[in-house]
Amino acid sequence: MIKTVFFNKEENCLELIDQTLLPLQEVIIKCRTEVDIAKSIIDMQVRGAPAIGVTAAYGVYFGLINPKNREKKILLEELLEQICDLLTGTRPTAVNLFYAVNRVRNAILNLHTGDLDKAAEKALSEAKAIYEEDLAMCRAIGKYGQELIGDCETWLTHCNAGALATAGYGTALGVFRAAKEAGKNIKIIADETRPLLQGARLTAWELMKDGFEVTVIDMAGGLIRNDMVQGVVVGADRITSKGFVANKIGTYSLAVLCKYNGVPFYVAAPTSTFDMSIKYDDEIVIEQRNPDEITKFAGVQVAPTGVKVYNPAFDVTPPELITGIITDKGIIEPIYAETIPQVLGLK
Amino acid sequence: MIKTVFFNKEENCLELIDQTLLPLQEVIIKCRTEVDIAKSIIDMQVRGAPAIGVTAAYGVYFGLINPKNREKKILLEELLEQICDLLTGTRPTAVNLFYAVNRVRNAILNLHTGDLDKAAEKALSEAKAIYEEDLAMCRAIGKYGQELIGDCETWLTHCNAGALATAGYGTALGVFRAAKEAGKNIKIIADETRPLLQGARLTAWELMKDGFEVTVIDMAGGLIRNDMVQGVVVGADRITSKGFVANKIGTYSLAVLCKYNGVPFYVAAPTSTFDMSIKYDDEIVIEQRNPDEITKFAGVQVAPTGVKVYNPAFDVTPPELITGIITDKGIIEPIYAETIPQVLGLK
Repeated sequence: MIKTVFFNKEENCLELIDQTLLPLQEVIIKCRTEVDIAKSIIDMQVRGAPAIGVTAAYGVYFGLINPKNREKKILLEELLEQICDLLTGTRPTAVNLFYAVNRVRNAILNLHTGDLDKAAEKALSEAKAIYEEDLAMCRAIGKYGQELIGDCETWLTHCNAGALATAGYGTALGVFRAAKEAGKNIKIIADETRPLLQGARLTAWELMKDGFEVTVIDMAGGLIRNDMVQGVVVGADRITSKGFVANKIGTYSLAVLCKYNGVPFYVAAPTSTFDMSIKYDDEIVIEQRNPDEITKFAGVQVAPTGVKVYNPAFDVTPPELITGIITDKGIIEPIYAETIPQVLGLK
Repeated sequence: MIKTVFFNKEENCLELIDQTLLPLQEVIIKCRTEVDIAKSIIDMQVRGAPAIGVTAAYGVYFGLINPKNREKKILLEELLEQICDLLTGTRPTAVNLFYAVNRVRNAILNLHTGDLDKAAEKALSEAKAIYEEDLAMCRAIGKYGQELIGDCETWLTHCNAGALATAGYGTALGVFRAAKEAGKNIKIIADETRPLLQGARLTAWELMKDGFEVTVIDMAGGLIRNDMVQGVVVGADRITSKGFVANKIGTYSLAVLCKYNGVPFYVAAPTSTFDMSIKYDDEIVIEQRNPDEITKFAGVQVAPTGVKVYNPAFDVTPPELITGIITDKGIIEPIYAETIPQVLGLK
């Protein structure tokens, strides 16, 4: 099994496979402090909304056992805020990060203790629970989603919403895995995904490991126009209460292509990806990343010196383009403003 | 002026700026034989439908003066076929290549001579005429197209349909240049363009040289959705009699995004890009290129070893997505099956 996020009990560290080095090198990095954890998220050694949530949850634990923090002699609540601020400040768009960190924080605050050891123990057990739940949610997403896929079909996905983006198994790729486990012979098209090539580097790698036939492409338009794809499933970084979906840049274009050509377009995400505190797309903070991601590759400059660059990491797909949202509680269909609260048990 | 294609009379060679090395290095290569010319087209040191047409036209001349060919002691007609087959066999999609080579061949055949010197002289004069006409057509395209652009607008383009893709001035970029010359303050968004990054490397470079404000992006969807672009102009590699447009992969997706969001989508191309011998998209041969273009960058592998790749260089945009086609004879509007033959003087 791929070690996306693995708590090593003997060494008391969190092991992550360095996703910036895949597929050429499989290097495991070991995080022992909340700073290690934050750095691994910022540098995208771990990425994918559910995976960074799980990783950050462990980060609270490492912050509480960090000797440097204990030397500060400050109140637990104050230390907890510092640790949580560091962790939630790493990336702004994926809501799972905020969900997971807040959940660990609240679990600790509910102990009503000032004892750091007890707080750390709680942080670790809550992080483990989030990890286990994420894995279970991915399996459930797969179970519901695979019903949508027929035998001998070709489906397309964007970026990596796989085992590498979650505690394991994946959301969008979990749907494909479940279809395969159900005996369906399916082929997968992996969008290479700009600018960091998660599709070419990560999705192709993990699906090939599982024996899928994968084809990497740069542009999906022609395939969708020519009926070479029976459906699309992507992941999500944040879903609003009205069904606006923030996901890796390029997702919106794919959704429009599907709508125009009558191809089903699904989003697969655990319930932890829903942000019921907001309704519309303009309430989602979209991370702007370093222009170097577009102007350079592998150290080689590919654009003129000084050119302006616009490099948002995500875009937002509006609900009218989404055929359904595959969650661990079932498939949600429009009208999302009504169905999302129902499925999440809020109505 | 950028030396996309320049006939050096003193050295009797064709000078090309090596477009694979831009924007980092400005290296001029000198072609002295038809084999040099064919290689420069295959390796995309020169690219862009009109530019490869002009280059290949000169290739016929170099083939006819090549001492190795003269040693063969074969009939002019036979030699001419060999040279033309070599040149037209370089790339299959852009029709300008076939147009230019056939035009030079026919000019020679119409001499009804067996004399190689006379034939070579004719080839050179015809190639020069094609060069001059291409430049004039680009200017005319600019003149007509710039009327579509308002002051203080932002327009987007894909790949490079610029001075580097033509004898000079450009088709899509010619429209922008003419708008600027007309005193309009415009900003340009350059799609980086996968997999060879012609937008980031070439369009940004040549527009910045001319003092444009250029922004490089990887994914146009979000900008088009958020009304950050007032219009799109792209080039074309082949246009059928019913208005199907083959152009760099990604063009179709852009056209669908524009249609869905009500943004004008224009194609700019000289009349030499129309192929009136075919009607529909499936009659256009789409070049499939080396998977390495997608699995490697600058020698660095970015996809798992052995993964399948689908790497067509072009896609086809159907006429219903195209607001207008800007040509040297005016702007053609739907219904294209009627208006294209009219503007080309065939009806």
